[in-house]
Amino acid sequence: MSRIFKSLTSAENALEKFSGYIPSIAAEELPLKDALGRVLREDIHSPMDIPPFHRAAFDGYAVRSVDTFGASRNNPITLKVIGVIRPGDQEQYNLGELETVEIATGAYLPNRADAIVPLEYSKRVGEFVEVIKQVSPGANIDRKGSDIEKGTLVLKSGTYLGPFEMLLLSSLNITHVRVAKLPRISVISTGNELVELGSKLKMGQIINSNMYMVSSLLNGLAEVIYRGIARDDESSLKSLISESLEDDLIVTLAGTSVGKKDLVPKVVEDVGGIIIVHGLSIMPGKPTLIAIIGETPLVGLPGMPVSTSVSAIEILLPIVSKMLGIRGEIVWPKIRAKLSRRIASRPGVRHYVRVKLSKNNGEVIATPVRVSGSGIISSLIKADGFVIVPENVEGYEEGQEVQVLVYRRWLEL
Amino acid sequence: MSRIFKSLTSAENALEKFSGYIPSIAAEELPLKDALGRVLREDIHSPMDIPPFHRAAFDGYAVRSVDTFGASRNNPITLKVIGVIRPGDQEQYNLGELETVEIATGAYLPNRADAIVPLEYSKRVGEFVEVIKQVSPGANIDRKGSDIEKGTLVLKSGTYLGPFEMLLLSSLNITHVRVAKLPRISVISTGNELVELGSKLKMGQIINSNMYMVSSLLNGLAEVIYRGIARDDESSLKSLISESLEDDLIVTLAGTSVGKKDLVPKVVEDVGGIIIVHGLSIMPGKPTLIAIIGETPLVGLPGMPVSTSVSAIEILLPIVSKMLGIRGEIVWPKIRAKLSRRIASRPGVRHYVRVKLSKNNGEVIATPVRVSGSGIISSLIKADGFVIVPENVEGYEEGQEVQVLVYRRWLEL
Repeated sequence: MSRIFKSLTSAENALEKFSGYIPSIAAEELPLKDALGRVLREDIHSPMDIPPFHRAAFDGYAVRSVDTFGASRNNPITLKVIGVIRPGDQEQYNLGELETVEIATGAYLPNRADAIVPLEYSKRVGEFVEVIKQVSPGANIDRKGSDIEKGTLVLKSGTYLGPFEMLLLSSLNITHVRVAKLPRISVISTGNELVELGSKLKMGQIINSNMYMVSSLLNGLAEVIYRGIARDDESSLKSLISESLEDDLIVTLAGTSVGKKDLVPKVVEDVGGIIIVHGLSIMPGKPTLIAIIGETPLVGLPGMPVSTSVSAIEILLPIVSKMLGIRGEIVWPKIRAKLSRRIASRPGVRHYVRVKLSKNNGEVIATPVRVSGSGIISSLIKADGFVIVPENVEGYEEGQEVQVLVYRRWLEL
Repeated sequence: MSRIFKSLTSAENALEKFSGYIPSIAAEELPLKDALGRVLREDIHSPMDIPPFHRAAFDGYAVRSVDTFGASRNNPITLKVIGVIRPGDQEQYNLGELETVEIATGAYLPNRADAIVPLEYSKRVGEFVEVIKQVSPGANIDRKGSDIEKGTLVLKSGTYLGPFEMLLLSSLNITHVRVAKLPRISVISTGNELVELGSKLKMGQIINSNMYMVSSLLNGLAEVIYRGIARDDESSLKSLISESLEDDLIVTLAGTSVGKKDLVPKVVEDVGGIIIVHGLSIMPGKPTLIAIIGETPLVGLPGMPVSTSVSAIEILLPIVSKMLGIRGEIVWPKIRAKLSRRIASRPGVRHYVRVKLSKNNGEVIATPVRVSGSGIISSLIKADGFVIVPENVEGYEEGQEVQVLVYRRWLEL
């Protein structure tokens, strides 16, 4: 029997309803060099001071500041140079009265030195140097621990490790970190019409291409296990779902609508699953299904490629972020642009309108890509991103300024 | 002898001056499944029509539209159902007069059918169906080639392959693509004070952490070959540079300023290199050096971590993009925010001010992170991004709206 969508749920409400069912992924310890793009599962307290020693912030002369008091161009004070310290040098110096050490930026300070006289306020004369400006205690020095003090909480559990976190952790000489494991995500395609890439296409067949898009969207965030194509009979889908129940998340592609051949809702219930949400108030993307089978969450993405992509962005990626325990929300690049044409939308539904960006007299213009359906693959390529029209807005006018969610890493305007 | 920066060059001019020296990386053929994140090195013309056959856009009945003319609720027209086609079915039907085939969305059309009567305008009565609405030729059909026509240029050489390009290429049954090889980039650290991660730190030593940041920024775009740490003597740096001359690009870290121990400019010239740019009008990031040694480009990044990062973003990544042949410019996520404090800047220099983002009454606030130098690692972690103050602007006022370049993939506001 055909079903109908009983009611539509907003993406936020869907995630809210589902949040209690999303498992947290176990942690593992990794060498730091392998941890880029992973999610921290421990608070990091600094095991050391940064800088680890009082350090020269300028090239010049390390001095006891008291020795320079009163120094000026007219009244230079002469200090004896007892040595030189470059970064990485190990030799220890003790400054006596009116003594100094030549020093380079980044080098540690000799004992009893408390300031640096920069090169430009000094005049070297053989073993001596004339100082022509007085310096106060601490001047031109990066004090030990002034950047990061030992024991400070520097990164919280749930931090995504990007290039700057790698900089910090390596600076702290942290060689291993506890991070979330990559969730194992089973992807099951559905549909008799699907064949694998490279097959000779017979009449009525198409390539299982949504799998490539979804795996790509999950790249770096999960270990994707592709389970193959379930045919349009219940036993085929049942058996692939059953195979996947040990994984952290099951994603099915297509078969989530309310037609006779849309087997996902039925099979999910047949294997004892509970459907939490079926039908989202987003367009495209409506026929999305979220369910729990035992303890395994299942996300049923719609089969039309544009719907698949919107639903993956709105539902799948936030669920995976939550499994990983990432703090905060995904940042999508957004660009302000002026609409070249009116966008119509239905109130109560969040619309994703594909737009092409271009420049005209220095102004960024967003032109809606004309398409006749959510199955239109070329539109995703022609467009550079989505204009999102919220539920409570009835479209946008020509000339209006809008935010475009850009889904490209490089953009040619 | 000490050098001084003779003049400062803007990042754009530096890239412009250097563009003739940037080699284009050779291409290689890859299986499509391995091509995510790579850069296309061929134009892709569609080898087939998409959809590859006339396809039902709705569940319903495939008809000869002429048979439905005049049909209405009051005047239903009865057709004989001679079969059923579901997506993936292979059986061929030929419609005769007043014949129809039950059809599901995505299935191919029977011969002579030219429209679909959607389910809701039909009433099934055994072997017959009553049609209560007339349909015009082409109605509710995705015509063969209507999404993409065979032969169309669908992707240009130079396209970065993201999830949607993977969708397109797999839909077209393209199993292999020509892409740019990953450039081999040698990274050479410099400085006597540096030791490798995991070493026991002696007085005056710090970890070679910039290497982790720069490798992370290049992740996915290049094959990074870490050559080790050049000590502060010319022969050590000379030998590491000489080892790297077969690679596509050499990146040195630190030693690019104008102090005595800044060996990079001197050694580059000693090995026969030509310095194209030395000194950028960006802050931090000024002591950046761009050179060419024979045919091998060299980018000397400054050693203070914040300077390293700004220079990597402004100079290194655009150079690598150009080597890969990527069309367009890198898209950074940008967020509009209100400044919580005034930002001062020096005219003629482009400033990168680290800011922390937060929300206050729904408004996004950017708070400059107080720091005392470009060596401050904690500031990169405390901040969420940069406010870029252009050369021709003298700072921004408190309360002013600014664009923040966000360098996080997840953001907690």
